[in-house]
Amino acid sequence: MRYELYYWNGIPGRGEFVRLALEAAGARYVDVARHDGGEDAMIELMDGRRIVRPPFAPPFLRAGRIIVGQTANILLFLGPRLSLAPASESGRLWTHQLQLTLADLVAEAHDTHHPIASSLYYEDQRREAKRRAGHFVAERIPKYLDYFERVLGRNPRGARHLVGGRLSYVDLSLFQVVEGLTYAFPKAMARMARGHRNVLGLRDRVRELPRLAAYFASERRLAFNEGCIFRRYPALDL
Amino acid sequence: MRYELYYWNGIPGRGEFVRLALEAAGARYVDVARHDGGEDAMIELMDGRRIVRPPFAPPFLRAGRIIVGQTANILLFLGPRLSLAPASESGRLWTHQLQLTLADLVAEAHDTHHPIASSLYYEDQRREAKRRAGHFVAERIPKYLDYFERVLGRNPRGARHLVGGRLSYVDLSLFQVVEGLTYAFPKAMARMARGHRNVLGLRDRVRELPRLAAYFASERRLAFNEGCIFRRYPALDL
Repeated sequence: MRYELYYWNGIPGRGEFVRLALEAAGARYVDVARHDGGEDAMIELMDGRRIVRPPFAPPFLRAGRIIVGQTANILLFLGPRLSLAPASESGRLWTHQLQLTLADLVAEAHDTHHPIASSLYYEDQRREAKRRAGHFVAERIPKYLDYFERVLGRNPRGARHLVGGRLSYVDLSLFQVVEGLTYAFPKAMARMARGHRNVLGLRDRVRELPRLAAYFASERRLAFNEGCIFRRYPALDL
Repeated sequence: MRYELYYWNGIPGRGEFVRLALEAAGARYVDVARHDGGEDAMIELMDGRRIVRPPFAPPFLRAGRIIVGQTANILLFLGPRLSLAPASESGRLWTHQLQLTLADLVAEAHDTHHPIASSLYYEDQRREAKRRAGHFVAERIPKYLDYFERVLGRNPRGARHLVGGRLSYVDLSLFQVVEGLTYAFPKAMARMARGHRNVLGLRDRVRELPRLAAYFASERRLAFNEGCIFRRYPALDL
């Protein structure tokens, strides 16, 4: 199977959670919108009049005749196919539950720089952004990191993975979220190091996985930037 | 199977999406936190030291030995068990994709009255709320309603359901979202009636389903209120 990933060119964004799973599994895929005409093809699949099941927004994935949208749903679909999810139903639901919790955190991280509207520039909602980011850094990052620290610490198979004794897609997503938060809020995240040893240990191990280390060194990996979810605005790193 | 639903007492909130599925299917369930000591039992399942797979937040559902958290994940689990999801994998993914899109809309609706922090009162973020609500009403509600109108209009089995030719849990969730938006933004939603005939037709039909009509007439159905996601603050109904 050759997968087709559709996501905006130039930003890691939510597409990166899917890319990490494909890369970690050594899957064959095309990052469609990064090729000539690819962004038009992506928009046609969302807005074309003949599309019976249009995705609301990127990312979405084409696998043969099926098109799957919503990041967590794509990973739910890919998990068993890429051997990045447990075999049991309860294990898959638990993995997906953690992924949806990360999705909530990602949406909150985005809204630190866009608390009023995605249609406005950051510069037009700076005052509100600073206020929201203060609460995000003081209350929300610790709440989420404490939670994932606890989940890792309680895993009966050990704190090396979030689910069971093997790598799953949600380990990769937690890695990406920690990387993103560290990019956007370096000072705040430096303070969080204490008390989140399991989370940071997982981050370090994922970074060194051979396939991912090769991916990170390639031009396929996109750097965080200020067009993306995780943005480095020093005024918000409180 | 007798299901146990865990959700804050006194508000419909996200728990209501699960309740609607259970009620529409005539399932046996207990709304745990609405009974004496139930809220303590709920908090114990989240914060207790011996809980191996703690949910991050309510709602969550207990079914025998399994505990499932995250609203959309609970519905993913219940769908086939309550005959409220298609049989095929592609149909289930599509249903779940639509549910996750509704979840995004619900989170945005919540943030109209809490654009800065959930930990603050609405009264402490009124100015920002008004600004965010203006964009939500002008840009986001139409974008989402247009999308669901299109999905209904393109369903090869007809516009009576979002997925295939039968009722699924996402029909119930769309109903609840439209009811919530109409409660919170009555003037804005009155303007939206034009051009969203499929969505409003579905809303009307779900309201009349015999089991749900009985549920709505019972004391089990909780009214929308200002402690919930959808709040009627006239200043925000722009």
